[in-house]
Order: sequence, then C-alpha cells, then structure tokens
Amino acid sequence: MAIPAAAENHPRSESPFERLGAVCRERGPKDLATRLFALQAWLAEDLGAVEAQLATLPRAGSVANTGAGHQLDLGGKLLRPMCVALAARLGIGFGDRARELAVAAELMHNATLLHDDVIDQAELRRGAPAARAVYGNAISVLAGDWLLIEALQRIHRSADRALLGLALDTIDKMVAAEAVQLENRGRVNLNRADYYGIITGKTAALFRWAMFAGASAGGLASHHQTALERFGLELGVAFQLADDLLDVTGDPAVTGKAAFADLREGRINYPVLLTLERDRSLCKQVERRLGRKTGESLPAALSSRLHLQLVATGALEECRGLARAYAEEAVACLSSLPAGPARSALATLAAVAADRDS
Amino acid sequence: MAIPAAAENHPRSESPFERLGAVCRERGPKDLATRLFALQAWLAEDLGAVEAQLATLPRAGSVANTGAGHQLDLGGKLLRPMCVALAARLGIGFGDRARELAVAAELMHNATLLHDDVIDQAELRRGAPAARAVYGNAISVLAGDWLLIEALQRIHRSADRALLGLALDTIDKMVAAEAVQLENRGRVNLNRADYYGIITGKTAALFRWAMFAGASAGGLASHHQTALERFGLELGVAFQLADDLLDVTGDPAVTGKAAFADLREGRINYPVLLTLERDRSLCKQVERRLGRKTGESLPAALSSRLHLQLVATGALEECRGLARAYAEEAVACLSSLPAGPARSALATLAAVAADRDS
Repeated sequence: MAIPAAAENHPRSESPFERLGAVCRERGPKDLATRLFALQAWLAEDLGAVEAQLATLPRAGSVANTGAGHQLDLGGKLLRPMCVALAARLGIGFGDRARELAVAAELMHNATLLHDDVIDQAELRRGAPAARAVYGNAISVLAGDWLLIEALQRIHRSADRALLGLALDTIDKMVAAEAVQLENRGRVNLNRADYYGIITGKTAALFRWAMFAGASAGGLASHHQTALERFGLELGVAFQLADDLLDVTGDPAVTGKAAFADLREGRINYPVLLTLERDRSLCKQVERRLGRKTGESLPAALSSRLHLQLVATGALEECRGLARAYAEEAVACLSSLPAGPARSALATLAAVAADRDS
Repeated sequence: MAIPAAAENHPRSESPFERLGAVCRERGPKDLATRLFALQAWLAEDLGAVEAQLATLPRAGSVANTGAGHQLDLGGKLLRPMCVALAARLGIGFGDRARELAVAAELMHNATLLHDDVIDQAELRRGAPAARAVYGNAISVLAGDWLLIEALQRIHRSADRALLGLALDTIDKMVAAEAVQLENRGRVNLNRADYYGIITGKTAALFRWAMFAGASAGGLASHHQTALERFGLELGVAFQLADDLLDVTGDPAVTGKAAFADLREGRINYPVLLTLERDRSLCKQVERRLGRKTGESLPAALSSRLHLQLVATGALEECRGLARAYAEEAVACLSSLPAGPARSALATLAAVAADRDS
C-alpha cells in the first residue's frame, strides 16, 4: 500500500478546515476532497463560535492560565467540537448549549494533553514546545487541573445530569488508559488486547462523549444518541490508528511531531506492534531503545530497519486497512439516522480520520 | 505565649481520634480533652464507615490505584469527613448520602495532596515517603486525577446539582490558590493579602464545602447551611494557621514533616511572614535560602536565628492568637444552630484545630 505523500507544511495559523482540507487536496479520492470542502463551509460558523469561546479563557492572571493558554494556542484540529456540532445538527442544530459542550470537549482534550505531556516528559506538541517544556511540570499539572474543572463546570451549567455523569466516566476511562499505557512504557511485548484497551480509553471514549453530547444538545431520540455514541467510538479508534501511522510515516514538518515519537517516549504503537509480531528479530533492538532515556532520537540503523520492515511485513498496510475498516464501521452506525448534510458530513469526517496525513 | 509541648510520637496505625486526642491529653484546658473524648466516642461509627469505604478503593489493578492507595494509606486525621458527619448530625444524621459525601471530601483532599507533592517536589507526607517519592511524578499525577474523578463521581451519584457545582467551584479555588502559591515560590515579599488568598483557597474552601455537604445531607434549612459554610471557612483558616505553626515549631516525629518544610519548598508561611515583617535583616538570608534547591535543609545558622526571632518578634504568639480568633469566629457562626452534642462537637473541633500539635 502506498504511503500518503507528505503534504506541504501548513502553518498553525490556518483554520482547522484548512488543515484538514490539505489532507485531501493533494490526493484522491477527489470526491472526498469535494465533500470535505462542503463540510468546511457548513461548519465554519459553529467552529468559529467555539474558537471565540476558547479565546475568552484568561491567558494570564495565574500560572495555571498561562500554561493552559499556551496549550490552547498551539491550535488543534477541533475534531471533538466538530463531532458535537455535527451530532447537534442532526437534530435541532448547534445552539448555545451545543457550543458550550463543544468547548468542554476541547477543554477536556487539552487538559489530558497537558497531563500526558508531563507523564511522558514530552518536549513537543503540535510542532511547538509543549507547555511543560516552556513552563515546567508543576505549571502543566495545575493547568491541566484547571482546564478539566473548567470543562466540567461548563457541562454542569449547560447540561443535564446524565451528560455530566458520562463526562466523569469518560475522564475516568482516559485516566485508566493512560495508567495502563504508563505501566507498559518500555515494554516491547504489548499485546493487541492491551493496545485496544489503551486507545479505546485514551482516544475513543472522548469522541464517544462528544457525539453523545451533541446528540443530547440536538434533542435526538435515545436510539439515535446510542447510534452516535457507537459512531464516536469507532471514529476514535480509526483516528488513533491513523495517528499511529503518522507517528511512523508522517513528515514531522506536517505532523508537528518527531518521527517515532511514540517509541522515543517508550510506547509501542499499532504498526510497530504488528511489525514486531512479524519480525521477532527486531524486538531486542527495540527493547534496547525503550530502555533508554525518554526523548532521545532513534539510532539511524534502527530507524531505517523499522521503516523497511513496517512496509515489508505489511504492518503499515494492515494498520491503514484497519483504520479504514473502523471508519466504515463508524459510517455503518449512521444508517438509522436521517439522511442529510449532517450525516454526510459525519461520513466524511470518518473517512478523513482514517486517511489523514496531518 | 508558650509553644505547646511536643506530644508523644503517635504511630500512624492509631485511629484519627487517638491522633486528635493526643493533642489534648497532655495539656490544658482539661475541659477540651474531656469534650474531645466525648466527640471521639460519638463519631467512632461514622468515621469507621468512612474508613471502610476508603478501604474498598482498589489498591492495585493500575498504577493510578497503587499511587492513590499509597497516599490514602498514609492515614489522615479525617477532619473533612468529620465536618461532614457533624454537620449531618445537626440534622437527620449521618446516613448513606452523608457518608458518600464524607468519603468524597477526603478523596478531593488526597487528590490535591498528590498533585501538590508533585508541584512542590515534596519528599515526605505524613512522616512517610510521599507517593511521588516512591512511584514518581507520572504516577502521582494520574493517581490525583483518578481520586478527583472518584470524588466527583460519588458526589454526582449521591447528591443534588448544587452540591456538585459547589464541589467544582471548590476545586477551581484550590487550583487557583495553588497557582498563586507556585507563583510566589521563592519570593520573600509575600504580603498578608496574598497569604490569606492562598490559604482560603488551598485549605478553607474544602472545609467550607464539607460543612455545606453535611448540612445538605442532614436536610438542614438554608440559613443553617449558610452558617455552617461560614463555620467551615473560619475553621479552615484556623486549621491552616495552626499548620503553619507546626511547620516552624512542631516536632517532626509528631507532625510527620521536616522542620521548616514550607521554607524548604520555597514557601513563606504566616509566622515566617510576620517575623520577616518585623526583622527585615532576616529577609536577605531567607531569600538566599528560597533561591536554593527545593528540599535541602536550612543552614543551622538560619534555622537557629529563625527559631529565636519567631519568638522574639512575637510572631508565634500572634499567629496562635489569630488561629484562636478564627476558631472563635467559627464558633460564633454556630449560635443560630440548635444546641446539642453536634454543635458542641463542632466547637470542640474548632478549638482543637487552632491549638493542635499534630
């Protein structure tokens, strides 16, 4: 399977749409690019409102604000707010409540990133120095705590009891998954079940919540809410598998992360897991690397051999196939929902999630 | 003013009552010891139920559980659960809902301790190695996140909307106060307003919430809930002032903290703040110490001079006087509440908070 060609370098000042759009402009299928373009135009106002809300959070006043502001200003793709918006638009639309929940989803995401970067001793985030690299671990811990509480306060103010309960359960799952990941740090023998457990908790749980929150704000019937929750879970897994692929094949100038950042931080991701399953002779070399200090680049010999074996063992191809299969599962969850632009947009989002190159 | 004599060393296996009781057994007023004894007998069952609940939290299964278990097993005085229980007993009593809220208060407290110890790079907690010293910062960050979510889930399951909103506001205040404290780390010119802001957020806010939670679970009228919230705030300030006194005068074998732990971690506490106001010549020496690596003991010359000047400037006496004044304010808040054993017990708690030596 061909690895997607690296796109141009897209500066962070571009909108989330421009960043996502670049994924599709330079390669096929053409249809996907056209559909993404329509999605962009359609959601511009909703996500503009989310960005405006994020901009109102104080950037100064306390070190927690400063650290959190640094993280928020790194700019993200706003995929979770996009999920909330699209789910809401399947119902009564993206009103104030949906907007608050979309903001909360983005804040929960950034809160966990702040803590994850402390845990992983990460230096880079979205191509720029991570908050902890600029302000230190202490400030990042507090900044993460603050954003988490900000998110929960917004959900509390704007939502019903069930949604807040599910938000708490979601964060609980994210923390548990991060703990399992931390336990497995430096271990070369991560199995598939552990891997799925980790990414379901770490990534998919929040996509699921975002879909449920949007469905709830959109006033959808309970069976539609359930269908969208399932969509969110499948989408989240597809998204994380694509993220793993970017880690091993992406252009650091486009992804904003160093190549093999997962291995550098002691983590085995899915394409590497598959490669090691199929070429046991690589295990020793990788194990030696995992035992070294977090953050160091990979020895050139290991990096070259991994690049070769990721292709030769079919690991990349299988990982991309799996990402697409999850995206298709996600799309299948939409079948019971009313056809229309919001449903098409969700299908586009799933396709992009599995095939993105940034 | 005489500094309380050091009590015997009380091993951590003693109950919270035994730990608190020791404060009063060996010094006056006799009346206080008698009242505390009655309080102990009265609350034994309630706090036993809280401890039993805390014991059911998993200690293994994930590194987050292990880290949190270490923190919980260090044993605390259970003052916040005690507040919930006493407030509830002013009304319909300490039922299941009150117990869950009491557990939540203790979990919130321990969650913030886990993160605070990461922020302060603390080595000791309650006379034993802090969780971060045993398991590292990464696990302590996750363990704190987990306990926080555990606490919020319990409040969500057992309480009304308002109580959860207030819990979120309380944590928000605690995080903000910790941020101000962190900003002031290493600064010798902390002023009284900053100090009060910090301890109100860091300590008193959670006592306030605990009183409100107990009052709510006890079904008290709204004006009684408000009176108890005020009691909690005043009690919290008294408690923190006494904590500051223990930091500069306490016996490490009793308090479980190194002498001058605050200064060692870059913090100016209230007795030191007063001493520096009155002996400006000490500022330079203290400033030099604050600029050094966190955790190092104080040079003997500085430690001796501080001990002398804390007494000579009247700082200790004023700090103890202030702690007692806050305790009296707290007791005054109780005047509108129905007289009886619960009200007397709260008054005892306030007196002990201001005058404890462990």
